[in-house]
Amino acid sequence: MVAGGFKPGCKLWLEKDGRIYGDGLFHLLHLVREKGSISAAAGELGMSYRAAWGKIKQAERNWGLRLVETRVGGECGGGAALTREALDLLHRYEQYRQEAVRAVWQVFQQLFD
Amino acid sequence: MVAGGFKPGCKLWLEKDGRIYGDGLFHLLHLVREKGSISAAAGELGMSYRAAWGKIKQAERNWGLRLVETRVGGECGGGAALTREALDLLHRYEQYRQEAVRAVWQVFQQLFD
Repeated sequence: MVAGGFKPGCKLWLEKDGRIYGDGLFHLLHLVREKGSISAAAGELGMSYRAAWGKIKQAERNWGLRLVETRVGGECGGGAALTREALDLLHRYEQYRQEAVRAVWQVFQQLFD
Repeated sequence: MVAGGFKPGCKLWLEKDGRIYGDGLFHLLHLVREKGSISAAAGELGMSYRAAWGKIKQAERNWGLRLVETRVGGECGGGAALTREALDLLHRYEQYRQEAVRAVWQVFQQLFD
């Protein structure tokens, strides 16, 4: 076996209409879900609120659906929550990512271990 | 279903000792195998002979094995061939790539179709 010491690497994303959506966007949505706030999520990622908001709004425009709703009191007073559609999509993406990485490892192990 | 119109994307590679080896190197080896010549393989990729040779030599150093042997007459007169170890590794990588992409698609389809 000459192939010792290798590990598999893989980067995953989704494409739609020629645009790419990957861990950046979905991690941001994940953090909005966890923290109930776009600004807290942005801070966790070292992004500005403006950049995080822009990223979410762009995906909303591209996909033609709402992803985030701000609660009474606005972002500062009330926070933000993912819509049901965003929760559904995020859940699928997280499953896709986890299972796809596992599948790639399995293929690798069959061929290289 | 809000998740219509998406397609999965993935980029694959192998890692060893913190270095990354992907389609660039393995496509080059594939072309050396097909064409029996490093310069013809380099030309097909729009690379210089020097760059292609350097890429192969670096992998040989990092992995501690010979990948390419030049035949009698040297590169110009006799051409180049992959060693048995390189053929084995290339074969595994090509299978890994093909089967891993298929596995990612299958996971995607289960979650998004």
